[in-house]
Amino acid sequence: MPRTVDHDARREAICDAVVTIALEDGFAAVTIRRVAALAGASTSVVTHYVAGRDELLALTVRREGARRREQIEEAVGGLAGGPALRAAVEWAVLGATEATHRTWLALLVGAQSEPVLRAELDAFNRWWDRLLRRHARLVGPTPDARVLIDVLDAIVDGLIVAGFDEGAGWSLARRRRALDAVLVPLGL
Amino acid sequence: MPRTVDHDARREAICDAVVTIALEDGFAAVTIRRVAALAGASTSVVTHYVAGRDELLALTVRREGARRREQIEEAVGGLAGGPALRAAVEWAVLGATEATHRTWLALLVGAQSEPVLRAELDAFNRWWDRLLRRHARLVGPTPDARVLIDVLDAIVDGLIVAGFDEGAGWSLARRRRALDAVLVPLGL
Repeated sequence: MPRTVDHDARREAICDAVVTIALEDGFAAVTIRRVAALAGASTSVVTHYVAGRDELLALTVRREGARRREQIEEAVGGLAGGPALRAAVEWAVLGATEATHRTWLALLVGAQSEPVLRAELDAFNRWWDRLLRRHARLVGPTPDARVLIDVLDAIVDGLIVAGFDEGAGWSLARRRRALDAVLVPLGL
Repeated sequence: MPRTVDHDARREAICDAVVTIALEDGFAAVTIRRVAALAGASTSVVTHYVAGRDELLALTVRREGARRREQIEEAVGGLAGGPALRAAVEWAVLGATEATHRTWLALLVGAQSEPVLRAELDAFNRWWDRLLRRHARLVGPTPDARVLIDVLDAIVDGLIVAGFDEGAGWSLARRRRALDAVLVPLGL
C-alpha cells in the first residue's frame, strides 16, 4: 500500500516551523536545515515544496498575511466609514494575539535586509492602506483623510511596539484607554 | 619613548563598532571578534576594556542612552508642563536621526532575548517616564496623566516604527502633521 502524504499538512508544518524560528531568533535565523529539523522532515522534503529559502519565507509570510486579512475582514464585516476604521484598528491593537504582534515586528525588522520579506510586507500594507482609504473617505473632513490614515497607522504600530519597548505587553484595558484618547477626538 | 594610548578614543571606537554591527545585523550579531576587527584592534585589546560581551553591550547602550538624554534635556531646556512634553516628543519623533531610530529598534528587538539589553532599555525608559510624569502632572486634568503619557509613548514609538513598516522613512512634514493631529486635541 502506498504511503499517503497529506501535502497540505506538510506545507502547514513547514510554515509553522518558519514562524516559530522567526519568533525566537528572527527571520535571519531561518534556514532550510533548521526548518526541516523542526518540522520533523528531511531537507529534501522541504525543498520538494519550495525552491529555496526565499520561496520558503514568501510562502510563510503570505500565509500569515492571508490569515490576518481574513480576520480583519471578519472584524470589519458590513461596517463602513468611521465604524469600519475603528473595527480594523481595534482588531490590530486589541484583537490580534501577542504571537501576531511578535511576527509582525520580526517581519518589519527582517524586511530591512531581506528583499523577499520587504516585498511581502509591502503587499500586505498595500491591502491595509486600500482598506483604510476606502473608509477614511467616508469620514468627515477633519482631519484630511491622508492625515487620518497616518495617525491610525502610527497609533496601531505604536500600541503594538510600546509593549515590547516596556518589556511587558500592555493590558487590553490600558491599550483601549490610550486608543480611545486618540480616536475619540478624531470622531471615531 | 612609551607608546601613548588614548583610552577614551579606543573605548569610543569599540562602542562605535558595536553600534555599526547592531544597525546592520542586530545585537545578536555582536561578537568580541567582530567588534575588534571593525575597530581595528585585537580581541585582547577589546577585552582590556570590557570583561566580556555583556559588558560590551551594556557599555555601548549606556553611552548611547546618555547621549540621547543630553539631547532631550537640551531640547526641553527650561520648559515645563505641556510645552516640555511637546519638546521631548518632538525631539524623539522629529529631532532624532534615522540612525538613532534604527538603534532603538535594534535594542527593542535585542532586549527580547538578551537580559543585559533589557536592563539597559529599562533604565533608559525609567528616566524617560520620570521626565514625562514630572511634566504631565502640570497639564490640565483631561486626559488623566497616566493615559496622556501612554498616548505620548505610543505615538512616539508608532511614528518611529511606521517608517520602517512602510520601508521608507516618513518625511518630517508628514510626521509633524500626524503628531499635531494627536497632540493638539490633547491640549499640547
